[in-house]
Amino acid sequence: MENKNLKNCSLKEIPFYKVHGRTKSGSYPLPLFFNGSAVEVNVSGTELWIDLTVNYTAFEPWITCEINGELMSRQMLMPGTYAICLFRNMSPEAVKNVKVTRELQAMSEDESCSLIVNGFRSDGIFYPVPGKKYAFEFIGDSITSGEGTYGAREDTDWIPMYMGYSRDYAKLVAEALDADAYLISQGGWGVLSGWDNNPHSNIPSCYEKMCGLCRGLENEKLGAFEPYDFTSRKIDALIVNLGTNDASAFDQPMWHDPVTGEIFQQRKNEDGTYNPDDLLRFKNAVIDFLKMLRRNNPQAHIIWCYGMLGYSLSLAINDAVNQYITQTDDFNVIFLQLPNTTDETVGCRAHPGQKSHARAAQVLIEYLRDYLGD
Amino acid sequence: MENKNLKNCSLKEIPFYKVHGRTKSGSYPLPLFFNGSAVEVNVSGTELWIDLTVNYTAFEPWITCEINGELMSRQMLMPGTYAICLFRNMSPEAVKNVKVTRELQAMSEDESCSLIVNGFRSDGIFYPVPGKKYAFEFIGDSITSGEGTYGAREDTDWIPMYMGYSRDYAKLVAEALDADAYLISQGGWGVLSGWDNNPHSNIPSCYEKMCGLCRGLENEKLGAFEPYDFTSRKIDALIVNLGTNDASAFDQPMWHDPVTGEIFQQRKNEDGTYNPDDLLRFKNAVIDFLKMLRRNNPQAHIIWCYGMLGYSLSLAINDAVNQYITQTDDFNVIFLQLPNTTDETVGCRAHPGQKSHARAAQVLIEYLRDYLGD
Amino acid sequence: MENKNLKNCSLKEIPFYKVHGRTKSGSYPLPLFFNGSAVEVNVSGTELWIDLTVNYTAFEPWITCEINGELMSRQMLMPGTYAICLFRNMSPEAVKNVKVTRELQAMSEDESCSLIVNGFRSDGIFYPVPGKKYAFEFIGDSITSGEGTYGAREDTDWIPMYMGYSRDYAKLVAEALDADAYLISQGGWGVLSGWDNNPHSNIPSCYEKMCGLCRGLENEKLGAFEPYDFTSRKIDALIVNLGTNDASAFDQPMWHDPVTGEIFQQRKNEDGTYNPDDLLRFKNAVIDFLKMLRRNNPQAHIIWCYGMLGYSLSLAINDAVNQYITQTDDFNVIFLQLPNTTDETVGCRAHPGQKSHARAAQVLIEYLRDYLGD
Amino acid sequence: MENKNLKNCSLKEIPFYKVHGRTKSGSYPLPLFFNGSAVEVNVSGTELWIDLTVNYTAFEPWITCEINGELMSRQMLMPGTYAICLFRNMSPEAVKNVKVTRELQAMSEDESCSLIVNGFRSDGIFYPVPGKKYAFEFIGDSITSGEGTYGAREDTDWIPMYMGYSRDYAKLVAEALDADAYLISQGGWGVLSGWDNNPHSNIPSCYEKMCGLCRGLENEKLGAFEPYDFTSRKIDALIVNLGTNDASAFDQPMWHDPVTGEIFQQRKNEDGTYNPDDLLRFKNAVIDFLKMLRRNNPQAHIIWCYGMLGYSLSLAINDAVNQYITQTDDFNVIFLQLPNTTDETVGCRAHPGQKSHARAAQVLIEYLRDYLGD
Repeated sequence: MENKNLKNCSLKEIPFYKVHGRTKSGSYPLPLFFNGSAVEVNVSGTELWIDLTVNYTAFEPWITCEINGELMSRQMLMPGTYAICLFRNMSPEAVKNVKVTRELQAMSEDESCSLIVNGFRSDGIFYPVPGKKYAFEFIGDSITSGEGTYGAREDTDWIPMYMGYSRDYAKLVAEALDADAYLISQGGWGVLSGWDNNPHSNIPSCYEKMCGLCRGLENEKLGAFEPYDFTSRKIDALIVNLGTNDASAFDQPMWHDPVTGEIFQQRKNEDGTYNPDDLLRFKNAVIDFLKMLRRNNPQAHIIWCYGMLGYSLSLAINDAVNQYITQTDDFNVIFLQLPNTTDETVGCRAHPGQKSHARAAQVLIEYLRDYLGD
Repeated sequence: MENKNLKNCSLKEIPFYKVHGRTKSGSYPLPLFFNGSAVEVNVSGTELWIDLTVNYTAFEPWITCEINGELMSRQMLMPGTYAICLFRNMSPEAVKNVKVTRELQAMSEDESCSLIVNGFRSDGIFYPVPGKKYAFEFIGDSITSGEGTYGAREDTDWIPMYMGYSRDYAKLVAEALDADAYLISQGGWGVLSGWDNNPHSNIPSCYEKMCGLCRGLENEKLGAFEPYDFTSRKIDALIVNLGTNDASAFDQPMWHDPVTGEIFQQRKNEDGTYNPDDLLRFKNAVIDFLKMLRRNNPQAHIIWCYGMLGYSLSLAINDAVNQYITQTDDFNVIFLQLPNTTDETVGCRAHPGQKSHARAAQVLIEYLRDYLGD
Repeated sequence: MENKNLKNCSLKEIPFYKVHGRTKSGSYPLPLFFNGSAVEVNVSGTELWIDLTVNYTAFEPWITCEINGELMSRQMLMPGTYAICLFRNMSPEAVKNVKVTRELQAMSEDESCSLIVNGFRSDGIFYPVPGKKYAFEFIGDSITSGEGTYGAREDTDWIPMYMGYSRDYAKLVAEALDADAYLISQGGWGVLSGWDNNPHSNIPSCYEKMCGLCRGLENEKLGAFEPYDFTSRKIDALIVNLGTNDASAFDQPMWHDPVTGEIFQQRKNEDGTYNPDDLLRFKNAVIDFLKMLRRNNPQAHIIWCYGMLGYSLSLAINDAVNQYITQTDDFNVIFLQLPNTTDETVGCRAHPGQKSHARAAQVLIEYLRDYLGD
Repeated sequence: MENKNLKNCSLKEIPFYKVHGRTKSGSYPLPLFFNGSAVEVNVSGTELWIDLTVNYTAFEPWITCEINGELMSRQMLMPGTYAICLFRNMSPEAVKNVKVTRELQAMSEDESCSLIVNGFRSDGIFYPVPGKKYAFEFIGDSITSGEGTYGAREDTDWIPMYMGYSRDYAKLVAEALDADAYLISQGGWGVLSGWDNNPHSNIPSCYEKMCGLCRGLENEKLGAFEPYDFTSRKIDALIVNLGTNDASAFDQPMWHDPVTGEIFQQRKNEDGTYNPDDLLRFKNAVIDFLKMLRRNNPQAHIIWCYGMLGYSLSLAINDAVNQYITQTDDFNVIFLQLPNTTDETVGCRAHPGQKSHARAAQVLIEYLRDYLGD
């Protein structure tokens, strides 16, 4: 039963493998920081294992394994350093495409959360992994983190089990267009502030680091807080799906930091309309973020999409995009409305379910197919 | 075979019937000016005919007949005054709901085009026709005229046969929400100008008349050019689907009127972006039209939707809507993007087909269901 | 408005046209006896009319017109001799494919019912109509007559309006496989007897005549009762969809002919099972009909399908098919179960609706695609 | 990070849990013999683990975990005795429904393959698990084992990864009708013989044991070969999906046992038809199996379904069912044809994919809904 031919190979010893998501070339061991971050191999042999080091306090990472492009497993990871068998007892000659993907978003609320790939164990030979035709980056909040794509409608816990890249619109879009997917998303965060008016829960503040969403010493050692080398990739389309938590903030009480005393709030007028100053602050955050995105991705077509959990800030985002274009003469940006989530398409925690993600993906796929001339 | 019990009843003699679409209460004979304009009865008896007077030079009206809410027939109308049998040989006691609907848009290019209902022939009794829960008005161009919802993909003639209310998104939306539908739409027309830069092909210029899209003496006699009495109805939602031809105009040569010498053109810059002056002119037309709509429909929720044939002016329309809100403090207006037409959903004449209309309707239905709290 | 270039052409003068459904080559004028019977032309010109003679007492024929393969109109026919405009105002050069199809089954209950094509009026030129790849014959009852494919669920009248080839599974199957369709079907009829135990309401008794379902002198003159020349066509697949009314007969009271005193009944035992003698009689009718079908269509693959309105006689039909094979060593016959109609797929008069026909068609399409190696 | 409140509970100590699939009441430890066999709990607390003992040589079991009815994980099991975390970090008060299900069929080709549940670890309280409305047993081959429901089309290895209850038609049918599911199925097996003419690969020979599909001492100790107590359950519907491998056998070379010299073959005639003696042998096997099923399940409605991989033996199975009814006067049995698998619905190893299972399930669901009056 034990396979005597298995050889342990650290990543350093493996001639060919592909890393998905933001990474630093040659990282060893290899942290998978983001949802959708993955390692992919083409390998012959009868059996394959992956060597992982997993750490966390509250929020455990989950992974999926796909073989030849089809989902085989989805499982919770225990802490520790160990190997997981990905396939066994297969025809030795056939080359299998195997991709192990992090389901869970980078966890800003768990300093010790990390998922590291050390290597593989195999009795086969590793072959090159071809590139994809395009590269897309998806920037978002809980929607892009796939929160609610797993779980029953009545489930309300905020736990990794209910989040996942495997049913996310980003995965559907990237696969339909033959694109590599980069994700950076965090549940509850916005462009200007989080859903609770916490002004630190904004994606722009993290965007230029390798993985500014992480916390803690361990992640620091893994290079999470270093500036990300944007020249290491060339993004064809940048899909920003933010604004949903910024909209929520207008309905929430003031945030105040018990330590510093700092306070923050986006306000509504008594008639239910947005306070103009606060709306302006939001729009400026959108404009500033667009400038940051352009600076780091000069060639990318920027699609600001919005709507999967309501259209409240649609006009405001459009206004910001219009102002950005006027200020910069950069016309390589558009706004795309995604279908709102309905009773039929909702998942758990009142978040978009699998069907809602599929519908949103369809809009993006059709738009991109047209834009890219595919 | 001949039914001796049939009685000819002019509309005046019929105690209960319902007119759909813009009309003047008590009109007799009854012109059906618009696509979607209809006459509806609840009637017992074994047999029912409708008495029509039809006139046209180039573009013949088509009608559909629905019995108990289901489509039974769709047919071309010949010119003249005559009766058409709607049902026969049915159970006499049962009350049948019968609706005869004009498929064809008001035809600005055929002065003599008109469709008039004179009455019915029946051996039954007419019963009251209950009202609907809501009232919607749909304002648009060829998309709202259902151009391309009939016909094979390769068909390219611009003829009534290929246009129709019966597969239009407006019909789907109205029926899903139990709403009466008012339509005013014209193929090739825009907010500022037509697809060919003809500045007279703009819907706002016609909006406040009963049916400003018509031409000719006959239609004048029928009251088409009189001011429309907006107080005769109370619109809950006003769906504007305009901008598609305004976008086309930017790609067309200058229009010039051979008689008056008048010229008009929306221009693009050499780099393919929109000429800012011309874009401003378009935005102002949107803003002005919104003001006109609001003036005439104080309570209506205004939805400017756009996208079934491309998203080019999406940002410009949003900008105009934003400016309108800023200028008027009227927040009862939103922008809704409709899914673009794809190879799978296209109909004839490169227009949205039945599937595209169904998809667009779904977005509107979901939005309105949410908005109306249904 | 009047087209001075129109020429009246009797069918004799038209060089190219195609007749669908059972016909005698060169028939003039041309009777369309069956649902699905049609005349098809390829014609240039701006305008086309069809010249018809229509007769009936109770049940009026309906027709559809398809242009370039797409449904344009569906309408009730009035009695008389007249012309109907099929298209007008089209581009003169383009060759249009036009097909006018009888919606209504042959009406055994209306002796005077007939639909005759006399010719066309056109300002164009007629071109050859290419043949299809395959030829299928569909033999059935109300299901194959498309009863219930039009109409609201609550509608219960037995009238032509609710029947139609245009939404029938036979049309879907034939079009999906590029086949010519021949239909012979009659609502209420069976293999052995009608739903009401009338033993004369059996399809086999009519199968070998041109159109044995018709009645009356007029139809006799049109050749309806002459033996059908089966050599005039070569059927690839013969789809028999019978047994549903035979099953109903077991639940009905005895039929007796008030004139001749003849009686007939298919009986059930007290425990609800079928009387073995009567079941045997049914099975023998199936076997005999299979022999008749084979005699007249030596090469046809025979598919006995069943199930759209219940599976009650499924085992009995299979038994009969098995016995037929044993008796004849003819293995070119199979049984295919079609999906039963559900609350979601039902149409009017508790008959299969459009969705049920689409599902049944899918089963047949997939089977035939496989069988024909398409 | 470690949860100090977790208590290890052997099954004996757990007051409430439900076993799915064939089992002996009070079994401890609890073997999950079949695909679809499962243990289900309702439990509060923040965390839950399951204690397993897993053994195998070649074919590793896979399991799924469902929380509140939704799939959370699917994973390969390693050999040994260990615990797997099912959920963690959840709201303590909420009662979660958790079901751990064996994906893999009983493995006749791996003597040492077994999956045993020892108990749970939890910091919550166990609550009763309510029963289902109905009980169904599904008897089949690789189709019922869900072979091909996972995996890419090009995958050809015969390994557990590609088999699974989680996408099986049996699961869909049972859940749609609120029924408990019992499965007994084995890839390659038939009613009379296996696909390779091995006459020992027949399901009837195993049906009356607890799990006659298993092999080996370990499984013997677990009670696999003891007579199954059919009175421990009351099956409402018995769905037999066999015949596919019997059909294959007719196309395979003779099977011969290298040890005993025993030979077996189902033969075709030169013209491709079935050898009558061999077909008779098959039919008799069907008849005998029906008698065995009836003997053990006196009240069950027996549905012999067939067709997901071709209709070749459809008539023969019907003949056998008819003969069975004639011989026994037992009318509580029917034949149901399931839709064949197409290019669009195929999975890996040329077996029905997820879409094919969904279509087959739909036919069964509709039939059972009607039969059960649901």
